[in-house]
Amino acid sequence: MEKKILLTDCPDDKGLIAKITNICYKHQLNIIKNDEFVDRVEGRFFMRTALEGIFNDATFLEDLDMALPQGAERRLVSAERKRLVLMVTREPHCLGDILMKCYSGAMDVEIAAVIGNHPDLGGLVEKFDIPYHCVSAQGLERFEHEQKVATLVDKYTPDYLVLAKYMRVLTSDFVARYSGRIINIHHSFLPAFIGAKPYQQAYERGVKIIGATAHFVTDDLDEGPIIEQDVIHVDHAYSAESMADAGRDVEKLVLTRALQLVLQERVFIHGNKTVVFK
Amino acid sequence: MEKKILLTDCPDDKGLIAKITNICYKHQLNIIKNDEFVDRVEGRFFMRTALEGIFNDATFLEDLDMALPQGAERRLVSAERKRLVLMVTREPHCLGDILMKCYSGAMDVEIAAVIGNHPDLGGLVEKFDIPYHCVSAQGLERFEHEQKVATLVDKYTPDYLVLAKYMRVLTSDFVARYSGRIINIHHSFLPAFIGAKPYQQAYERGVKIIGATAHFVTDDLDEGPIIEQDVIHVDHAYSAESMADAGRDVEKLVLTRALQLVLQERVFIHGNKTVVFK
Amino acid sequence: MEKKILLTDCPDDKGLIAKITNICYKHQLNIIKNDEFVDRVEGRFFMRTALEGIFNDATFLEDLDMALPQGAERRLVSAERKRLVLMVTREPHCLGDILMKCYSGAMDVEIAAVIGNHPDLGGLVEKFDIPYHCVSAQGLERFEHEQKVATLVDKYTPDYLVLAKYMRVLTSDFVARYSGRIINIHHSFLPAFIGAKPYQQAYERGVKIIGATAHFVTDDLDEGPIIEQDVIHVDHAYSAESMADAGRDVEKLVLTRALQLVLQERVFIHGNKTVVFK
Amino acid sequence: MEKKILLTDCPDDKGLIAKITNICYKHQLNIIKNDEFVDRVEGRFFMRTALEGIFNDATFLEDLDMALPQGAERRLVSAERKRLVLMVTREPHCLGDILMKCYSGAMDVEIAAVIGNHPDLGGLVEKFDIPYHCVSAQGLERFEHEQKVATLVDKYTPDYLVLAKYMRVLTSDFVARYSGRIINIHHSFLPAFIGAKPYQQAYERGVKIIGATAHFVTDDLDEGPIIEQDVIHVDHAYSAESMADAGRDVEKLVLTRALQLVLQERVFIHGNKTVVFK
Repeated sequence: MEKKILLTDCPDDKGLIAKITNICYKHQLNIIKNDEFVDRVEGRFFMRTALEGIFNDATFLEDLDMALPQGAERRLVSAERKRLVLMVTREPHCLGDILMKCYSGAMDVEIAAVIGNHPDLGGLVEKFDIPYHCVSAQGLERFEHEQKVATLVDKYTPDYLVLAKYMRVLTSDFVARYSGRIINIHHSFLPAFIGAKPYQQAYERGVKIIGATAHFVTDDLDEGPIIEQDVIHVDHAYSAESMADAGRDVEKLVLTRALQLVLQERVFIHGNKTVVFK
Repeated sequence: MEKKILLTDCPDDKGLIAKITNICYKHQLNIIKNDEFVDRVEGRFFMRTALEGIFNDATFLEDLDMALPQGAERRLVSAERKRLVLMVTREPHCLGDILMKCYSGAMDVEIAAVIGNHPDLGGLVEKFDIPYHCVSAQGLERFEHEQKVATLVDKYTPDYLVLAKYMRVLTSDFVARYSGRIINIHHSFLPAFIGAKPYQQAYERGVKIIGATAHFVTDDLDEGPIIEQDVIHVDHAYSAESMADAGRDVEKLVLTRALQLVLQERVFIHGNKTVVFK
Repeated sequence: MEKKILLTDCPDDKGLIAKITNICYKHQLNIIKNDEFVDRVEGRFFMRTALEGIFNDATFLEDLDMALPQGAERRLVSAERKRLVLMVTREPHCLGDILMKCYSGAMDVEIAAVIGNHPDLGGLVEKFDIPYHCVSAQGLERFEHEQKVATLVDKYTPDYLVLAKYMRVLTSDFVARYSGRIINIHHSFLPAFIGAKPYQQAYERGVKIIGATAHFVTDDLDEGPIIEQDVIHVDHAYSAESMADAGRDVEKLVLTRALQLVLQERVFIHGNKTVVFK
Repeated sequence: MEKKILLTDCPDDKGLIAKITNICYKHQLNIIKNDEFVDRVEGRFFMRTALEGIFNDATFLEDLDMALPQGAERRLVSAERKRLVLMVTREPHCLGDILMKCYSGAMDVEIAAVIGNHPDLGGLVEKFDIPYHCVSAQGLERFEHEQKVATLVDKYTPDYLVLAKYMRVLTSDFVARYSGRIINIHHSFLPAFIGAKPYQQAYERGVKIIGATAHFVTDDLDEGPIIEQDVIHVDHAYSAESMADAGRDVEKLVLTRALQLVLQERVFIHGNKTVVFK
């Protein structure tokens, strides 16, 4: 008995659930969990079907393709471990939480490598017997630096790139190269405090909550599809620095929650939004 | 075009989603939203299917009954307004929130009547042109009092009885009479602080959170299936009284959220638990 | 024995707590609760001292004025009930919650009157025997409408004006007239979604949290000092409308929490921020 | 300029704040932050005064002792790093989070050693160059095992013992030996689900929230003074195992938050409760 996940993303149509679940039934695949959503404004249907059984992928997908409307995207993914490359700068908290969760088995993923633009986090990464590459940006044009990073990344053929507090803005070229596969943690409850120094901005505005946002990276800085967000309460006694200190726990929680959702194939990108089946 | 909700609660079996959604499709009923859950420990299948179309209830249910395994319970409910009777003692906050939500249309339900064991809340209820009946328990045996209450309740043929801070324990007979139809708000995060004076108990224990629990009432005091719970943070500076003050907002929120879930047919009772499709 | 609150807001200096509490002690005033905060960036000291005893205001304040540095503001306020005028448009939930909390005694304040720019909420207000004035803006210049409103407001000499979902932007003149005394509820977690239709903006951005912000009104729209904020989680299945529905409970909670803080003299305005002693 | 914290815990009396802050002023110690609480039921006064200046501890404390009522406890603690010994069994998440926070400097404490009753976590601890001692309980009487543990603990003279998912119940003797200095994380929102297997109990009860509690260990199992608690929401789809998975993040957050509070001298033990100045 194998487990796979069928992901369907197509124009809405009548009887889609019946058609798809019928094909599963015909192939004697047991549905463990089924989640669906129809965006009625856009007329788009999303379904995640966790299946168990003996799969004949080719005939199953053939049957599906006959049943689904034109413009349908469907993927049948097996539950094998994904591979990540993490990108970091100097802050260890998000990196550390991911390393620890992988070490303990709480997150079932392979961290192929960590790439930093500073040497600071090499020692931590190497404790866990994971390669750390320091690619300094000093003296390099932006595109040169990214070229070096991309060459390294590609060597590891990761499923996703995770910006675990990577403090540099990526160019359109880099983003396009890994389209829909770069996940970032931004240290504010977007769309508040876009851009640099969100905690400083939050301090100056005198907000009573601070937060974090995990999102896919797109060309527009801090405007990509949001996967997960959370906040904590603060008060007048917080400086920008103590907001940053307090924010670290929520940053790491939001990033690892988002990662788990992506790794478990629970997230559809839908224009500039996401559909997330928790 | 009508809207109805199909609720299926049956032993788990292969192909149930396919079978049921197929019948919907065959009857040209569009699925607005489908939620399912399988309790694998108990081998029980639960599905809530929100449908739109032209219904022939008799033939539709006949088809379903042919498809479903033995021991299946299924209900096809139309989206018509439910009717409630509220039971209260002296505290107005839960009652007031429900009255206000009905008045504003935020909660789509008919409050047929409010029954209190004290006269205090009559004035408030009558502002909203809803009958208030004060049935004092003074000088009456428990069963006599409940008999008087039940006679009144039955006059209004409510779908649910809501104990909106009704501070008396109900007998087994009364509970049995409205089995699965009495919803209570308990002012603690059950199973903590079962019984009387939960805020006093919470104060004495020195907890850092207090909360509220909405549940169906069963024979076992405070042991019925939980529908919804939430908490707020407190600290050493709270007295039992200020806990009670602070707790009122969470009590009313939890109760109205639970009520909305029940009214929208999102809650299955499953032994001593609930399955809630949010 | 009387209860009063001493509020001190002055340039920071050595020994301020000692000096002030000494004077309290000398006057045989018992300190029930003392909260202080020093903004070290701005060099400003804030203290709220809840006192109990027999007050000779004149000599007490004289002693204080001798002890406090130049530029100090201090107020000794008695715990008497404040008076509010509420301003509303069409949505009843914030209004309703305040009315209910006053009715039940959970909020100890006098609602002198409610002013709406539509007749819709008159019926609700009058149930509670509170005057409702509908001042339509139709056919009036903005300043003419505000003039009519202000005339009415002034008749009631309120301590605070509460915009309980008042959907019109106020002019600088009106704001200046009640400077530091107008409290608004904005239906987003500011500074996200400033301006009109925050829920529509939130829907379009695809955020996973929505929220509400209670703040003092200043000249800059949605930029005034924030008193209180909170959020709730949403997902892809929410439309702009269902976000608005879900948001109502958090709006009313945030507004009444902020109001309680203001009424209990727990809030200092500090430039464009607040210092809030909870 | 040095920083120290004065902790006062004494019978309530008139003018205590004035008296204490006066002495600080007289000694030219600047008050960075002052927090006080009076338990009016018990008539007990608690104050935490963060001070900055040049300290003459002997004369300062002499002055204080003259001013404070009989039965007063006062401590003047310098802000030097505390030393911990952690005790673990097999689960790495709480341990890992503490190790990571110390490594990154987010938690300013020395982990002198980790003692486990199984060898499993040795590899993780040693990555961080911290001694790990495995003291198996196999074949030993409870008191023999604890004797071996205590001998090890004492070698490191820790300020606190932290049970970071140590799955054995301690005897009265062991608890008494480190009275008020053992901090435990319990994986439920106490007092719910006292004892073994709280997640299994939570699953069986069908609760909609699960949580964690950090508390000082006393003789009564799971009944010690609570320092910090938090919860997360779950639903019917969670098994006992997935509750345990989901609960790990809240367990580690609650434990490290509690630890930070203790390390920063923000926690007074007050009978079976705590006074926590956040």
